Amino acid sequence: MKKNERISIITKVLSDHPSKVFSYNYFTDLLEVGKSSVCEDVAIVKNAVEMMGAGCVETYSGASGGVVYRPGVTKTEEMAILTEIADLLQEPSRKIQGGFVYYSDILSSPRYSKKIGRIIASKYVDMNIEYVVTTETKGIPAALETAHYLNVPMGIIRRSNRVTEGATTSVNYISGSSNKIKTMYLSRRIDLTAKKVLIIDDFMKGGGTAKGMANLMEEVGAEVMGICVIFVTRSPLEKLVDNFTSLIWMDDENIEGNGIGVSFSAEY
Amino acid sequence: MKKNERISIITKVLSDHPSKVFSYNYFTDLLEVGKSSVCEDVAIVKNAVEMMGAGCVETYSGASGGVVYRPGVTKTEEMAILTEIADLLQEPSRKIQGGFVYYSDILSSPRYSKKIGRIIASKYVDMNIEYVVTTETKGIPAALETAHYLNVPMGIIRRSNRVTEGATTSVNYISGSSNKIKTMYLSRRIDLTAKKVLIIDDFMKGGGTAKGMANLMEEVGAEVMGICVIFVTRSPLEKLVDNFTSLIWMDDENIEGNGIGVSFSAEY
Repeated sequence: MKKNERISIITKVLSDHPSKVFSYNYFTDLLEVGKSSVCEDVAIVKNAVEMMGAGCVETYSGASGGVVYRPGVTKTEEMAILTEIADLLQEPSRKIQGGFVYYSDILSSPRYSKKIGRIIASKYVDMNIEYVVTTETKGIPAALETAHYLNVPMGIIRRSNRVTEGATTSVNYISGSSNKIKTMYLSRRIDLTAKKVLIIDDFMKGGGTAKGMANLMEEVGAEVMGICVIFVTRSPLEKLVDNFTSLIWMDDENIEGNGIGVSFSAEY
Repeated sequence: MKKNERISIITKVLSDHPSKVFSYNYFTDLLEVGKSSVCEDVAIVKNAVEMMGAGCVETYSGASGGVVYRPGVTKTEEMAILTEIADLLQEPSRKIQGGFVYYSDILSSPRYSKKIGRIIASKYVDMNIEYVVTTETKGIPAALETAHYLNVPMGIIRRSNRVTEGATTSVNYISGSSNKIKTMYLSRRIDLTAKKVLIIDDFMKGGGTAKGMANLMEEVGAEVMGICVIFVTRSPLEKLVDNFTSLIWMDDENIEGNGIGVSFSAEY
């Protein structure tokens, strides 16, 4: 195998498995070359990935040494992605009776869910997250991609009790959109005891669902490391949860008016 | 930029965007080199991807020429992935009252959903699929990854009518597990008229849900190119749909007995 082909293979393996540490032995076996060649090849891949602004490649030396691709996103790319999504949200045809905006197609598109997942993962990449959880349905694609980039499993909290989940832990919560008491369920086969968990949801108005998820995590003994919500409405100003990160703020007064006002989180 | 770094970047771009055709101009602009260098680099990436058994890189010449990564999987890798999943399914702790098997964690894990998506996509890669649809909830990760590998959008059919989907088209179907008449809903904002659609679901026993999805596709004017179900029980032998592909067959007599019998589709 030629050096150039080795570099292509190392790039694909690392890029396909973000946050996963590969030993140098893995590559010496796969590529049938010595460790010094692999080290040289990895240095080139590291340069290339960093030039692309797609994150970084970290190497650890010593007997248990290895190499890992940590996903990242440049400020410029993040702004470009969020602007593209915000522009889509402002299409007049997306307005739904009752002041809602149709966005299921955006979050279900691999084109956007991958990018959103990479943006979210880049914010939590140093926090040793062990599990990503979301509540069905629309946030699942982004949660899955975030879990992929962090190299951890993803758990789905259900809105109804399903026989296929086995025994569940449940909590009640107040759904902001309907103002009714609802119940959410997590399979007891997902063991989150003492696990560092990242909560992801697609939409927040009052924060009732996010608060329910945080309560459920407390109930099962998990440690909530963060709550990240993709779309958050500016009003009400007071949410039922204190600490959360939003990607895009929605000016909902405008949603109900003539246009849909969408702006970015002040953090960007 | 050095040739080695160009190869790493081309590998990452192509691998991150399966089934998407990139013009040579895209790479000459990105890498700031001439077309002949890009052609040489692409040839090396093509070799490397094919050596890995991860699919192939196709090139088109001429003014509108370009390069595309078509995802694939070797028979050996496919068998290894499905065996690993089948082994997991047979863990005694996965048995749920009523003859069900708990597998939500497997399908929600990026580790498996990516691989399942690549396996499914490789079977439909030449069929010009334009949309992937699934019914919530457990099949969403695999459907998303399949859509990613085919470079098409994914649409989620809902089991209840949600205000955030706007106007919907609905069909009734008979759910095999409960033997009740249920309704499934697709947002009318997803336009599938004359679109070539691939239906994906996580589980089939009688085929009621799959038949409902096929009926719904007919109702919205889509052309069903295939139905792919991840887990299918051997009994009943007669399903409500004729043409479908399964990844793993489940011997459900055994599921209800002492052990869980899982075997592969006869196609492999």
